[in-house]
Amino acid sequence: MPSVLVAGASGYAGALAARLIDRHPEFELAAITSRSEAGKRLSDLYPHHRVSLVMEELDLDRHGEVDAAIVAYPHGAAAPLVAALLERGVRVIDLSADFRLRDVATYEHWYVTHPHPDLIERAVYGLTELHRDAIAAAQLVACPGCFPTAAILALAPLAEAGLIRDVVIDAKSGVSGAGRGLREDTQFVAVDENVRPYGVGQHRHMPEIDQELAALGAPIVAAFTPHLLPLDQGELLSCYVTTDRPVGQEELDLWFADRYSGERFIDLVERPPGVRDVRETNICAIHAHADERTGKVFVFAAIDNLWKGTSSQAVANLNLMFGFDEGRGIS
Amino acid sequence: MPSVLVAGASGYAGALAARLIDRHPEFELAAITSRSEAGKRLSDLYPHHRVSLVMEELDLDRHGEVDAAIVAYPHGAAAPLVAALLERGVRVIDLSADFRLRDVATYEHWYVTHPHPDLIERAVYGLTELHRDAIAAAQLVACPGCFPTAAILALAPLAEAGLIRDVVIDAKSGVSGAGRGLREDTQFVAVDENVRPYGVGQHRHMPEIDQELAALGAPIVAAFTPHLLPLDQGELLSCYVTTDRPVGQEELDLWFADRYSGERFIDLVERPPGVRDVRETNICAIHAHADERTGKVFVFAAIDNLWKGTSSQAVANLNLMFGFDEGRGIS
Amino acid sequence: MPSVLVAGASGYAGALAARLIDRHPEFELAAITSRSEAGKRLSDLYPHHRVSLVMEELDLDRHGEVDAAIVAYPHGAAAPLVAALLERGVRVIDLSADFRLRDVATYEHWYVTHPHPDLIERAVYGLTELHRDAIAAAQLVACPGCFPTAAILALAPLAEAGLIRDVVIDAKSGVSGAGRGLREDTQFVAVDENVRPYGVGQHRHMPEIDQELAALGAPIVAAFTPHLLPLDQGELLSCYVTTDRPVGQEELDLWFADRYSGERFIDLVERPPGVRDVRETNICAIHAHADERTGKVFVFAAIDNLWKGTSSQAVANLNLMFGFDEGRGIS
Amino acid sequence: MPSVLVAGASGYAGALAARLIDRHPEFELAAITSRSEAGKRLSDLYPHHRVSLVMEELDLDRHGEVDAAIVAYPHGAAAPLVAALLERGVRVIDLSADFRLRDVATYEHWYVTHPHPDLIERAVYGLTELHRDAIAAAQLVACPGCFPTAAILALAPLAEAGLIRDVVIDAKSGVSGAGRGLREDTQFVAVDENVRPYGVGQHRHMPEIDQELAALGAPIVAAFTPHLLPLDQGELLSCYVTTDRPVGQEELDLWFADRYSGERFIDLVERPPGVRDVRETNICAIHAHADERTGKVFVFAAIDNLWKGTSSQAVANLNLMFGFDEGRGIS
Repeated sequence: MPSVLVAGASGYAGALAARLIDRHPEFELAAITSRSEAGKRLSDLYPHHRVSLVMEELDLDRHGEVDAAIVAYPHGAAAPLVAALLERGVRVIDLSADFRLRDVATYEHWYVTHPHPDLIERAVYGLTELHRDAIAAAQLVACPGCFPTAAILALAPLAEAGLIRDVVIDAKSGVSGAGRGLREDTQFVAVDENVRPYGVGQHRHMPEIDQELAALGAPIVAAFTPHLLPLDQGELLSCYVTTDRPVGQEELDLWFADRYSGERFIDLVERPPGVRDVRETNICAIHAHADERTGKVFVFAAIDNLWKGTSSQAVANLNLMFGFDEGRGIS
Repeated sequence: MPSVLVAGASGYAGALAARLIDRHPEFELAAITSRSEAGKRLSDLYPHHRVSLVMEELDLDRHGEVDAAIVAYPHGAAAPLVAALLERGVRVIDLSADFRLRDVATYEHWYVTHPHPDLIERAVYGLTELHRDAIAAAQLVACPGCFPTAAILALAPLAEAGLIRDVVIDAKSGVSGAGRGLREDTQFVAVDENVRPYGVGQHRHMPEIDQELAALGAPIVAAFTPHLLPLDQGELLSCYVTTDRPVGQEELDLWFADRYSGERFIDLVERPPGVRDVRETNICAIHAHADERTGKVFVFAAIDNLWKGTSSQAVANLNLMFGFDEGRGIS
Repeated sequence: MPSVLVAGASGYAGALAARLIDRHPEFELAAITSRSEAGKRLSDLYPHHRVSLVMEELDLDRHGEVDAAIVAYPHGAAAPLVAALLERGVRVIDLSADFRLRDVATYEHWYVTHPHPDLIERAVYGLTELHRDAIAAAQLVACPGCFPTAAILALAPLAEAGLIRDVVIDAKSGVSGAGRGLREDTQFVAVDENVRPYGVGQHRHMPEIDQELAALGAPIVAAFTPHLLPLDQGELLSCYVTTDRPVGQEELDLWFADRYSGERFIDLVERPPGVRDVRETNICAIHAHADERTGKVFVFAAIDNLWKGTSSQAVANLNLMFGFDEGRGIS
Repeated sequence: MPSVLVAGASGYAGALAARLIDRHPEFELAAITSRSEAGKRLSDLYPHHRVSLVMEELDLDRHGEVDAAIVAYPHGAAAPLVAALLERGVRVIDLSADFRLRDVATYEHWYVTHPHPDLIERAVYGLTELHRDAIAAAQLVACPGCFPTAAILALAPLAEAGLIRDVVIDAKSGVSGAGRGLREDTQFVAVDENVRPYGVGQHRHMPEIDQELAALGAPIVAAFTPHLLPLDQGELLSCYVTTDRPVGQEELDLWFADRYSGERFIDLVERPPGVRDVRETNICAIHAHADERTGKVFVFAAIDNLWKGTSSQAVANLNLMFGFDEGRGIS
């Protein structure tokens, strides 16, 4: 039974990853680490995850003896640990942004000086449905951000068909997407009975969305704006696509059905989805609408930002890397 | 002191209108009526409004003897009452859609056969900031829908400048916008921890938005999609504008400052607004952003759908019609 | 593999029971029925449950050929179906109140004329932790109400020790406890930003709590008042016990540890629990506090009203009735 | 027009006090101060309060030249400022706990060493309905805590009648009651879909409740436990009273009607109140129920913790101190 380390288990993503591995029938949760919360049980912070393991200070001599690691560190801090783990032959799922962007300059424009640019080309972008085979063969998988996960799944069929001239992506996100750190704008009183845009014109998921859409055949600059909503988990992306030529509903349905036939974690739904429909699942629910009035195509995609948007997708990828069924432990 | 009838006081909009008139220093609340809740005090249904008047069955012989009326009836049902009131010389604020659309055919496409098409041309569209003088002189004011109120205020400066080639309007709305009727999709359990689009491709506020933008100089078909959020009052509109030529932030700020200088109920804010900022006010908070990456202009507008979006705007208009200060009773 | 019918699957409790059975490794979900929603797939109403089975009109000739049934009917309507199923040799879990009260007169005082008083004595009260052996041997199990489940688990150790002279139970409940029917007081706008007591002095779970406490050794009339909270699932009971003699923290801890040692679905927690801690679990989290200032004992108990309070407890009981591990399918 | 200083305006209570004074027809808001947020406009922190005044560092030489001050400092920090203001002849409303408790030892047991025990006897306890005349004549008013405000108003009629033998007070509070400081347990994700007790056995409002009940004729130790709810403003207290002799509904109604006749900010309501009913008002809504089953009396009281529970009550008291109508500026 392959052993798995979860490094950075005190944040929302790491904690959920730890829970999913802890209950996984094929993996053993070897250790969980945290810089800030070492010494506490995970269940002290997250009673509902019911993982009684104690978080430790990371010690590579002890913790590096695992078959795989899920790294849930902030950007910039993840890369050095990833490098050290790869050197020991550990297979790594990185949840940070450090290996998502192919272009170092782009990374350094949006984030910080890259600690290990040499490793970028070894990383596979971990959007399961799009890169399944490469993920299975990879030693390093860079899991997508939560917004890019939903955006790319929503737009891939149109991008691959060469239909996207322009797109506006309006994202609505629950508060867990902001992470566990104490911030004024995630205090209950700031969020409750409120909705507001954030990161306008400058959200770090932008270059990632553009990079992946370009790779699929849509070399555009997407307009992307997230909004903070009074709910804890869940993300809805409303994508408004200007197409290069008129697209009818029937044709649209075919593109999506073709692209996602056989994908068990993609739900093509007849009505626009709500985030409740996919809460605590690895599913992305998608509804595409050919809008006669405007000639545009609207695509709505709903995910759980902590599950499909982060940690359950990580486990799906880990399953692939070890030859297990993709849905083990996350269905 | 002019006397005011509120017809249809049991719904959210009528109830709030009744409260605002009841406390208004210049008007007297003469009567409130309701078909379904006659005999009850308004405070039985809405304790927080603290209006102890009893709702009655409408009886024009008694209730028609007022100086003004606010009609909060469903579309189709409003027009006949409006006609009867006008005939008696009553000044009327209609909150329904019956007199918002200038084109009968458009109205009948989106709603029902128009009961009084002859009266359409007598109605003034009650967006206070845009039609102040006409409202002051009108006997019949058709108050805008809540979404059009925010959409048109957000886009008017750009429309008047002839800059709008295309626009995507993504609206987020609290549940009170759906009205007081019992519906499965407004039950707590359906809304809580959820967000979902509705009325996709077919919301009745669409033709109203297009009509008013055209009148301002932007003859386009706007892509408009509302979403239901887990909050009770408040509406945020995120407008993504493709302009005919590049627009910089400085120029953009000038357009908005020029258009809205002196408007006390328009707040041009430096950061994207949240709906909490305008809760229970007649204010529309607007933030315009010239987006360098995409070349688009983003405009975010926040209102309270029941106040500025409906009932406080109605009272502002009534103030104008009777020569009172526009902000009396709603500041 | 024993086959299970879920009758009344369109309500919250029945729907969750159907989902739990559908994914259960030892049972087969044979059919689901609904009077009001026959013909629809369960996933049309509850996408997140992901049960694609179609709800049918009940037809005993077809549906009675099962090994077991979970009946999720309203009180009064359940008993006749239970009777018919028992006659066919089906093992029955009844989620209604029809067989919870031992005394017919009490039932008829609080509910309606009992349709099958003869069957009452055949029913075992399905509070798993207290009646495990009897449940295993029963053909008919009457699952407790959600409030009694938490109340009795919270108070059993003190009742059995003969310590309870008087108790005030203040309950806080999420909205799903009110069921799926359309009601004004469960509309989002009525519940949001609100908290209010309901059923004051007359809630139907009162006689059930008293009956079970008496059976455990505390023949009292408990003061019980539920409150409606703006959350969907979860129930917190705050129990304030006046004891017959002073009880210290150490002694108190012993009573609870003794009573619940080995109970895997009872969490004795060091800090007062929140309902988030037990969301979507079969767990009852309990914290007992010997209050020095007042001399009283406070016991706080948190459950998920739809899981431990109803449907997962039902499945635990079904597991026992068929000799499976109590936690199969609900852990 | 008397000038008023609000010291400590960056917290929830101080900010609301500043807003109420700013719009007050009889007072002038002279200055607002804050240690942590000096230099910012109040509207930067609280856009919805619409107070554009800039918060300053406190400078008694400048700020002490006012007619009155509302002090919204933490306990221990308030007393020295209060002392300095009194010395300058300023009339002071203190929102902290520093002058609420008559007994220094009790204060020092629950809080810190008292900085100015000599001033305690000069302070009047600012529960408007109970101490109106003394407040009007006072130079220093110690406003009650939010929980004591509701608790004492709920229980005063029974205490004065000598009927209370024992009482359990179960309080449900919105998150704003916890103040504006960054805390893990007031982050959105911690509060949302949750309810949990806090301060069990040791909440600082306990001695204040006991002190005031004793003064009214009920020398008891009340069992008081607050719970944190997912809403921002509002407090519901459910009081379960064991009486010395049986009390019927009719008698109960009389006690309450007698005690509160003529009180315009006390609403005796026929149904148990919800906190929505009193949101953003100075009203305490009370419902008393003589419970036949248990022989107890239940009293439910709802207030807005920031309004009646703190800042609007402060303004009511200030009105009294300056001879204005009690309801000026808060109705």
